[in-house]
Amino acid sequence: MQKVLFRHCDPAGIVFYPRYFEMINDCVEAFFADHLAWPFEAVHGEGAVPTAEISATFRRVSRHGDRLVLSLNHGAPGRTSLGLAFAATCGEELRFTARSTIVNVDAAGKPTPWPAHVRERLTRDSGDFA
Amino acid sequence: MQKVLFRHCDPAGIVFYPRYFEMINDCVEAFFADHLAWPFEAVHGEGAVPTAEISATFRRVSRHGDRLVLSLNHGAPGRTSLGLAFAATCGEELRFTARSTIVNVDAAGKPTPWPAHVRERLTRDSGDFA
Amino acid sequence: MQKVLFRHCDPAGIVFYPRYFEMINDCVEAFFADHLAWPFEAVHGEGAVPTAEISATFRRVSRHGDRLVLSLNHGAPGRTSLGLAFAATCGEELRFTARSTIVNVDAAGKPTPWPAHVRERLTRDSGDFA
Amino acid sequence: MQKVLFRHCDPAGIVFYPRYFEMINDCVEAFFADHLAWPFEAVHGEGAVPTAEISATFRRVSRHGDRLVLSLNHGAPGRTSLGLAFAATCGEELRFTARSTIVNVDAAGKPTPWPAHVRERLTRDSGDFA
Repeated sequence: MQKVLFRHCDPAGIVFYPRYFEMINDCVEAFFADHLAWPFEAVHGEGAVPTAEISATFRRVSRHGDRLVLSLNHGAPGRTSLGLAFAATCGEELRFTARSTIVNVDAAGKPTPWPAHVRERLTRDSGDFA
Repeated sequence: MQKVLFRHCDPAGIVFYPRYFEMINDCVEAFFADHLAWPFEAVHGEGAVPTAEISATFRRVSRHGDRLVLSLNHGAPGRTSLGLAFAATCGEELRFTARSTIVNVDAAGKPTPWPAHVRERLTRDSGDFA
Repeated sequence: MQKVLFRHCDPAGIVFYPRYFEMINDCVEAFFADHLAWPFEAVHGEGAVPTAEISATFRRVSRHGDRLVLSLNHGAPGRTSLGLAFAATCGEELRFTARSTIVNVDAAGKPTPWPAHVRERLTRDSGDFA
Repeated sequence: MQKVLFRHCDPAGIVFYPRYFEMINDCVEAFFADHLAWPFEAVHGEGAVPTAEISATFRRVSRHGDRLVLSLNHGAPGRTSLGLAFAATCGEELRFTARSTIVNVDAAGKPTPWPAHVRERLTRDSGDFA
């Protein structure tokens, strides 16, 4: 759960949309740490998982003080890539959805296969992650 | 021209992609001020122009110190919306592209027709804006 | 507790210090919501509590993945102002300290006395808040 | 000159003060690039220049669309440190002042003497930099 904080909001009193991408990135970082047991601080010793593409649709505005729940789903892993889907709700109301593709790269920035323990985990679950 | 600054970059030494969306927003803000003569600070007295959807493809990473040129193109205006296309290059190299739809809304957040002088300007030019 | 996230860090792999001020602001926002029962989203309907001055000393760098505990203390409230002191630790190690003065202002930006229930609460406790 | 942009502003329509520290950091980065001919992207190949302490006094609020001029002054260089002073004005009006101490460190984070060409330049001028 992410409360919409003062720092997320613009002069119109609603979330400035680049802040949503920071929330999405925090969500992916939490997914790697809590679910894949491969925290970004470990990933970044040997490579990175940059976002190759991302799209988002903002259906309803979110205001300062709103409580957002951001859920993450993923598809079956590609050899070096992974598709992610996000949905943010406030109560029953859908606020935004997003889809992205991330890529596992080595220290030189070259796409490289997911580590075995990560691939195994990504293959096993095809369910939800909130 | 936007130099990639220290504050744009992540521990991998490359631009953290939410910062690209801040650059894109700055670009739209400059387009409204310099090209449409309707600066955001005037827009926001009476309404707003929120982004309804946006997608981006990051083709090559950008590093601290790179000089990016971000260009903006737009389509013919809809009644209340406008499609925008962005391309960022460093020298000859394409770094990322993005497409977005913005909507003109009134103070209550309801889509509302573009002001006549803005519509006229958006209709007249269908060219480039850097 | 605030884990140092990817988005907080700079190309040197350490926290970019303006992000510390965002953490400090989040801390003040949580203090108002949880301790004073006067959340920022309520404050901002009728005024604001801008920071008039702030100073910080960064004693040790913090790295991606570190767990910071940020504590907030406050002095006795002035008529319209309040002094705050912050300390961030990681385990036993002190990472940074900061002091600020915030001011209660009305919708026109004029300093205005703290509401009675806020003053009463600020006067009663002179202890710690983490 | 830094126009106050949409992304700098908070729900109160004024600059969110952590954004001022980003402006200050951009100013230091420009000073190193343009005045010391030692751009941050070169500095960070071999070390860094972290901020050890900073204080700021916000005298007047700045609003979306304001044109700020941020000036930087520095004292005589210490062996490994440097004192900086900043003032931001909008027209004739002083908006904020700040003072900081930065330290030259090597790749291991240990304070290390300024390079000769940097020390020489810092010693020679004791004037203003805008």
